[in-house]
Amino acid sequence: MQDWDHLFANRSGRMGASEIRELLKLLDQPDMISFAGGIPDPSLFPAEEFKHAFQQLFEKDGHLAALQYSVSEGYLPLREWIAGQMADLGIPCGPDNIMITSGAQQGLDYLGKLFLSAGDTALVGWPTYLGALQAFNAYEPAYERLDPQNNRPVEDFHASAKVSGGAVKFAYCSPDFANPTGETLSLAERQGILDQADQLDIAVIEDAAYQALRYDGEALPPLMALDTQRTGDIEKTRTIYCGSFSKTLSPGMRLGWVCAAKPVIRKLVLIKQAADLNSSTINQMVMTAVAKSCFDSQVAKISGVYKERRDHMLAALERHMPAGISWSRPEGGMFLWLQLPETMDAAELLQRAVSEQNVAFVPGHAFFADGSGRNCLRLNFTSCGPEKIEQGISRLGAMLADRVAKVA
Amino acid sequence: MQDWDHLFANRSGRMGASEIRELLKLLDQPDMISFAGGIPDPSLFPAEEFKHAFQQLFEKDGHLAALQYSVSEGYLPLREWIAGQMADLGIPCGPDNIMITSGAQQGLDYLGKLFLSAGDTALVGWPTYLGALQAFNAYEPAYERLDPQNNRPVEDFHASAKVSGGAVKFAYCSPDFANPTGETLSLAERQGILDQADQLDIAVIEDAAYQALRYDGEALPPLMALDTQRTGDIEKTRTIYCGSFSKTLSPGMRLGWVCAAKPVIRKLVLIKQAADLNSSTINQMVMTAVAKSCFDSQVAKISGVYKERRDHMLAALERHMPAGISWSRPEGGMFLWLQLPETMDAAELLQRAVSEQNVAFVPGHAFFADGSGRNCLRLNFTSCGPEKIEQGISRLGAMLADRVAKVA
Repeated sequence: MQDWDHLFANRSGRMGASEIRELLKLLDQPDMISFAGGIPDPSLFPAEEFKHAFQQLFEKDGHLAALQYSVSEGYLPLREWIAGQMADLGIPCGPDNIMITSGAQQGLDYLGKLFLSAGDTALVGWPTYLGALQAFNAYEPAYERLDPQNNRPVEDFHASAKVSGGAVKFAYCSPDFANPTGETLSLAERQGILDQADQLDIAVIEDAAYQALRYDGEALPPLMALDTQRTGDIEKTRTIYCGSFSKTLSPGMRLGWVCAAKPVIRKLVLIKQAADLNSSTINQMVMTAVAKSCFDSQVAKISGVYKERRDHMLAALERHMPAGISWSRPEGGMFLWLQLPETMDAAELLQRAVSEQNVAFVPGHAFFADGSGRNCLRLNFTSCGPEKIEQGISRLGAMLADRVAKVA
Repeated sequence: MQDWDHLFANRSGRMGASEIRELLKLLDQPDMISFAGGIPDPSLFPAEEFKHAFQQLFEKDGHLAALQYSVSEGYLPLREWIAGQMADLGIPCGPDNIMITSGAQQGLDYLGKLFLSAGDTALVGWPTYLGALQAFNAYEPAYERLDPQNNRPVEDFHASAKVSGGAVKFAYCSPDFANPTGETLSLAERQGILDQADQLDIAVIEDAAYQALRYDGEALPPLMALDTQRTGDIEKTRTIYCGSFSKTLSPGMRLGWVCAAKPVIRKLVLIKQAADLNSSTINQMVMTAVAKSCFDSQVAKISGVYKERRDHMLAALERHMPAGISWSRPEGGMFLWLQLPETMDAAELLQRAVSEQNVAFVPGHAFFADGSGRNCLRLNFTSCGPEKIEQGISRLGAMLADRVAKVA
């Protein structure tokens, strides 16, 4: 056996297995009720539309181009369609402001690559999306807490970043139905983040993976729309928007996009050229057809179902959770966030939940850049139907009641 | 307009536009004869097989799984099929030794990420695949020349690497019909590279993108097969094999693989989790069906056509090139490599060839880590038919005859 460790780069020390991905393996067990993954319900996929679009493609001349290499920035008709969507969100832009990625996750990886030298600082929420931390970790940053409600002086951030050996480069944030909490930033909080970014003179990475999945309440403008209002032109914004088709149309197609000022897009295109040349041509062509034919109706369809499931889960939590446990009440997305009593450890709880109760969730500490949050956990409400939600939450509630009683 | 440059990472200074990709845009011009791209002839794609496989998928239950997220290591039946192919090449291994990537290019990016800290050294050929340099550049390495015929002392390499601020991490090499020269390493050269890697205690990255495309001569074992013969077990090898479906079945599906000892695969899976979660699920399922149904016959079919085109181009070069110009005679792959008189500059030539003669190729210096090779150029022989080859080489020959006469 070769000794590989001495050949691996420094960054490899920061590469750990994702608890979420490892947990996905549990989904295969019979009777397991999993609230762990962040995955959409496959029975809701627009399968007929995809079938039809693949069929159509092979009946036209386009299928040879679909099987060939294509430009790194992405398929022009898809970028045009996305630019139209962005305009509807208050972000007027052209296809040259869009690059297609293999999911929003790839956007995060490439943005880490573009901005972060080892020792640079990224501002992230406490908690934040685990996959963003994993993507950025490869570029060896330091993290500082992004807190829109606490205006720490700019000089403090700069000083800390210098101590870490670099500079503050960006704030990362998911303003709508964030993974893992499901929470949404208020308008004031959004403006606060832009103010802070202006003062620090840094970029803002807006992760909009769940943006389309609003079930009630009033839609708020994306950070990038507010930034465009302030500056008057996408070319003057500091926000970089990462979108995804994974939560609306299909994650298995692996398609998302980055929308930003052209100098950023041009650099990202060079990164993509060097990293995987282009996202699957055929998938981009098919996604264009499917998005055009059913994006709005598909969003309406899944929003109806997911809203019901969220309501089921909220009602089940009310019924089954003991006192001392609180949770978020998200207006959209895929997740609820539970706070257990301070002394409890959700990771430890997961072991028992899986082995004794056949229920899975994701322990909260993985979402904290500082490893705190051990008494929190994330529940996904989109992948199980009402019966399983009732069953799973009831089992979890009984287990927690037992533990809370012991702790008290 | 934001000033972005001060926010970009150090590595962004090493990200330049690919001349090859920029040249792809020229392909759209009418009457342009392009020997520039490294792309297969789309008219040879197994389009019927892909059509059938997509159709079949949507008629079975599998299509919902095809549209869903999947494991980062890749679709098991595809990894099993690839493991069988690797065994046929003299590399007995299991599916746990395989990770699916979005093309071999992604394998190179991830291997750069895994091995290279800024200042580490990679050994590469002079010339070597431009896309490998671009992938590795993101991790800010130094390059030293890998030359199987010149045994520079190990101490020299270590000393140079230290001066560059790191250690020697791997040798990168494409032993069969390498891009850009089309040349193949002899058995002695292959053993020499493994000897050198043993002495240096470094990894060997074997880029096998063109491996299946042999038109004549005798097949030689891949580096990894020789390494397996030496060590007796894939788990003891230092070679990492990057394969691709892009040159055989379809580049637009964006699928390739890495084959290596399990500790390397496990790290690569973590990198992939953090970078794009998984390669397109549906594409992996369809590629499995297509590979099983027609891989061998497809390789036989394209090899027949590409062999003829290579022969046409070689014959045309004999007819049209003036004295003082030499070229490689590859036994496979997609490229010929021309050496012009020392004083000539192929980049300058390209400008005239494109604007005056409607002929495109890739100037050689892009393939040299030190920027040398200005008197070399790469010709692709797979994407044009015999008539265009004759026309293009004749135009190029006339232009060169004119220039060589002036130089002399």
